[in-house]
Parts: sequence; structure tokens; C-alpha cells
Amino acid sequence: MNEAFLKACRGEATRPVPVWLMRQAGRYLPAYQEIREKIDFLTLCKTPELAAEVSVQPVDILGVDAAILFSDILIPVEAMGMGLDFYEGEGPALTPPIRTEKDLKGLRSIDPAVDVPFVLETVRILKKELSNRVPLIGFSGAPFTLAAYMIEGGTSRSFANTKRMIFESPSLFSPLMDLITEVTISYLRAQIEAGVQAIQIFDTWAGILTKEDYSRYALPYVSRVFKGLEGLGIPGIYFVYDGGHLLESTPGSGADVIGLDWRTDMETAISRLGPNVTVQGNLDPCDLFMPEDELRAKVDSILRQGQKAKAHIFNLGHGILPEISYEKARLMVDLVHELSA
Amino acid sequence: MNEAFLKACRGEATRPVPVWLMRQAGRYLPAYQEIREKIDFLTLCKTPELAAEVSVQPVDILGVDAAILFSDILIPVEAMGMGLDFYEGEGPALTPPIRTEKDLKGLRSIDPAVDVPFVLETVRILKKELSNRVPLIGFSGAPFTLAAYMIEGGTSRSFANTKRMIFESPSLFSPLMDLITEVTISYLRAQIEAGVQAIQIFDTWAGILTKEDYSRYALPYVSRVFKGLEGLGIPGIYFVYDGGHLLESTPGSGADVIGLDWRTDMETAISRLGPNVTVQGNLDPCDLFMPEDELRAKVDSILRQGQKAKAHIFNLGHGILPEISYEKARLMVDLVHELSA
Repeated sequence: MNEAFLKACRGEATRPVPVWLMRQAGRYLPAYQEIREKIDFLTLCKTPELAAEVSVQPVDILGVDAAILFSDILIPVEAMGMGLDFYEGEGPALTPPIRTEKDLKGLRSIDPAVDVPFVLETVRILKKELSNRVPLIGFSGAPFTLAAYMIEGGTSRSFANTKRMIFESPSLFSPLMDLITEVTISYLRAQIEAGVQAIQIFDTWAGILTKEDYSRYALPYVSRVFKGLEGLGIPGIYFVYDGGHLLESTPGSGADVIGLDWRTDMETAISRLGPNVTVQGNLDPCDLFMPEDELRAKVDSILRQGQKAKAHIFNLGHGILPEISYEKARLMVDLVHELSA
Repeated sequence: MNEAFLKACRGEATRPVPVWLMRQAGRYLPAYQEIREKIDFLTLCKTPELAAEVSVQPVDILGVDAAILFSDILIPVEAMGMGLDFYEGEGPALTPPIRTEKDLKGLRSIDPAVDVPFVLETVRILKKELSNRVPLIGFSGAPFTLAAYMIEGGTSRSFANTKRMIFESPSLFSPLMDLITEVTISYLRAQIEAGVQAIQIFDTWAGILTKEDYSRYALPYVSRVFKGLEGLGIPGIYFVYDGGHLLESTPGSGADVIGLDWRTDMETAISRLGPNVTVQGNLDPCDLFMPEDELRAKVDSILRQGQKAKAHIFNLGHGILPEISYEKARLMVDLVHELSA
């Protein structure tokens, strides 16, 4: 197997630097679009053969060094008892939003084998189809991010309902976070038992918190998740979107790898994280609009900066956009391999 | 006149610390809502008597130390030739989005006295109605933020069209930015001539740029605007939303005051800006959900941190939310005055 990604996860600086892309199984790929013409997003997540197929596509087409399970961070939230829909271009809708004691009581813990069997089946099929070419990454949302989605009932600009609950109803927020944390641990354990070789926790919304609030209301729950997976021998990546102001705190999560948003340049990020941290990132997804020569210089610059970390996994600083051509994405993967060889 | 705000703008540390709130004329105020029941947002912007009335409301009701003109940063963009609509809960729509040479050619420069006379008339009425109780702040969007709105045709999550133009069509992006910069200078000059005593430039979207891209594609145009107003003797505030990673660059704008988003705590921000910078901010708007004792502690903490700057103007780290009670906003204003007396 191509071990570069797992070696880097464990803190071993490798040449060439391994690379994968957040949302690498996605709409920018014509092969993915072909499947999505016949089936909606949520059904695709729940159809193991097809979910496995789209997860493998970027390995075949781009030559990335890791596959990631095709799924959505809200899948376990639906299993907890919320209605889940995705509307084209609008993001997810979760119903009813969790705002009261009664809403909270309507939620339940999950048994992944019973409640989300399709995720575990996707992992098992994927393991076979990948036949040890590259490692397989599982994932979940971070507790705060899932809570924010659940409280808002979807995305939000201000997250006023979420912060309102934190400040006005801590006796509601705290058990909600406990429940989500417990679910997340069992969900990730099940993915690991089914065969994923690394996990990534996506904290999409923690960046709306000040460092002080993050340390109280988000980070401790992420730490509990990583602690809950200790002893399973599976490396963990922690990605906070738009969390530049939280960089000094994130290694406290206990993650093996810190994923970096594109906003903070890698050199600055590493100097704030300290040299003993493995980093993942952080090309601006929109840099894939650059002409080849500019893209080459940009990739080279990130690779050079990444050498100051303990180890580096190349990635985008956020998910790849549907507007990007897959040829450009492939060029980027090739450039990473070539320039770090 | 209450000179505290203008003194602080000029770098003089004052006791008590002056305070105003971004979006202080807005939906959280019942008196504002009463007017909005009869008239839509854009019409309100264009009706000088009423726009002046809502601008004065927070001075009377909250006791803030400055008034800000009620308007919208997209008003001059409409005058440049774009269609502008506001849809409840969805943000602005600008038509047609600027994507081609032809779109760009459809835009024109503006003569504020002819194209946006209602803004200048609002300023003149406001000056009378305020009768020197507190200073009046005028404002505009920053060129990059206006360009992003114009290219996307509204808000966006990824700003893919904007960055695509930057990287794929620099020969389109550059003259667009030049035109917006020229319009912004004449728009702010006209506000100053009509009587505003300070100006704030809102850079809502510059935070999506890396520091490198910001220094090339956004900051130089902001500097040109501030340079274009030199010699008028009017202090300038520059607020970048979600721009924590750009802090070291922002003083290069030439602004007298740097507005701070809530994400980066003030102490960290000041240490990165340097002690010779006057700051404005930066309470999380959602902290107004806090119970009084917690809010008091938070306001006190920000005031203490603010003492490390050259001077400090208290504000929120973003606009006040409609969900906040105006009594809580008034409490915050009182707390600032009391705790910094």
C-alpha cells in the first residue's frame, strides 16, 4: 500500500508529500456528476455500492494518496432523530431545530450498526475496492459544529440561536453536547472497526467562537472524542474551518494532525502551532483557477513552508469547488508529487 | 459637543471610552421597526427625513457617543448602473453580475450630488437634528468588498467568481477595482463636504483573501481611498470582517482607527497591530445574550485590554443582531461608560 499518508499522519516527514483533497469525491468530477444525475445526494450517501464508487473515483482520476469515505457529517444527526434534507444550493435543513428541553428529549443516541449500517457497509466495500492501494479516511463533524447545525436547523450567518443557547440556557447546551459527543465517539469507533485507517473531524463552525468560548464550549468535546478513540491505533486529523484565531488551542484537541484553512499562511500557522505538530493543508481552493505557472509557484511555496512542520500532508484549505476543472485538480496533485519528490 | 469619539479617533485615550454600535440604527430597535413597517429598506435609505430619523434613534435611546448615517454600502453601486434589490433574509441582489468586459462597460462613475443626492441630504438633515450632540460618521464599502458583491451579484460562500476573475481575468478585475476606488473617493468626499465628521470603510469580504492576495488585490485600493481623503481633516476607520489573519497588514491602509472583528481577542490583536494603533471593537454581538454579570465582566475585560492600544473606541465586533433586546444594548453602552469612567 501507498503508506505516505499514514506515515505523515504519524509525524514522519515523507518525500514526496502525500496529498488528498477535501470533497475530492464531488461535483467537479464528471464521473461523479454522471451518478448524481440519477440519484440525489442523500440517497447516494445511503447506497453503499455507489458511495464506494464515488469515493474511489478521485484515487483513479487524480492519483491522490488517500481515499475518504463519501458521506455527510449530518448522517448521524439524522439517525439521532432529526429530519434531514438537502436543497440544491442552500445547504442542509434539519428539523425541528433543537431549541428547548422537549426538542432535546426527542433526540436519541445511536447504534451505528443498526442506525447507519449503510456507512459501515460503504467502508467495507471501499476497503475491498481499494484493495490496499491507498488508505481510507473516515470522518465525522465535531460536536460543536453538529450542535450548531442542530440548533440553527441548518447553516446560519450569525449563529445567534447557538450562542443564545450557550449564554441563556447552558443547562440545555451542555447535555446536548454530551449526547453528540457520545454519538460521535461510537460513530467513529464503528467506522474504525469497519476498516477506516485514519479519521478526520470537521469543525466547520467552531471558528465563530472567540478563543475563550472555544476553549469552554467546543474544544473539550473534541478532546473527549479523540480520547474516546485512543488505543485503537488510528491517527486523527482535526480541521477547523476559519479558525486562524484558535490555532494555539487546536493541538490541545489531541489530534495527530491539524488541518489548516487557507486564510492563515502555513508558515504563520506552523509558527503558532509549534514545530512539533503535523499539518494538513492549505491551498486556497480558488487558487485552482490560477494559470499553471502561478499554481506551480503557489504549491511550491506551501510545500517549502510545510517543511517547517513535523510532517505535512498537502490538501486544500477547504473543500474543492464544483467550478474547478478536474484536470486542474489533477495537475495540482501531480505538482505536489513532483515538487516534493 | 460630546468629543470623546473624535478625540479617540485622533489617538487620544479618553475616559470614559466612547462607544457606538455597528448597525445601531436597525431592527433590534422597536422605534426603527415601526418605521420599517411602513417602508422597505431601500426606500428608507432614499428618504432623507426618515433615514435621518432612524440614525438619531440610537443616540436618543442608547446614549451612544456617535451617530452613523443610515444607508447601505451598495447604494453607490446602484448609482454605478447595477440593479439592486434586498430580499428579506437573503441579503442583496445585484444585477447583472459583473463577469465580462461588456458588463464592466455598462458601469459608470458617479457624481454624488446628482446620483445619490438623498445620501447627502440625509447628512445635512442629520447634522441639524443632532445639533452637535455627538459626531456623525459617514461610510462606504471597501473597493474589494464592493467588487466581490458586484462580481457575485450578491453574497457568496466561496466567492469563486471573484477569485476566478482575479486569477483568470486580471485585465478585467484591475479596471473594475480602479473604477470602484474612484467612485468611493468621490462618494466619501461628498459625505464629508455635506458634514460627516468621521468615515468608516467596511471591508466585509477581504477576509476571504490570504494575506498575500489581500496585499495585492484589496489593500492598495483601500490605501488609495484614504489617500484620496487626505487633507480633509476627517479621521478614518477601517473595519475588516473576519480579517484576523490580515491584522499585521491593515495599518498599511492609512486608517486612523482599525476596527476589530470579535474573533481575535483584543489583547492579541493589539500585540499584532502594535501599540501605536487606535482600535475599535470588539464585543461578540452574541455576547449581548449574556446575563448582566457575565456581560459586565466581558465588557470590563475588553476595556482593560483596550488600554494597551493608543486609544480605544468600544464597539461590537460586527453589526448588532435583530434578535438582541435594545435594553441589553443600552445596558452595554452604560457598562462601557461606567467601567471606563
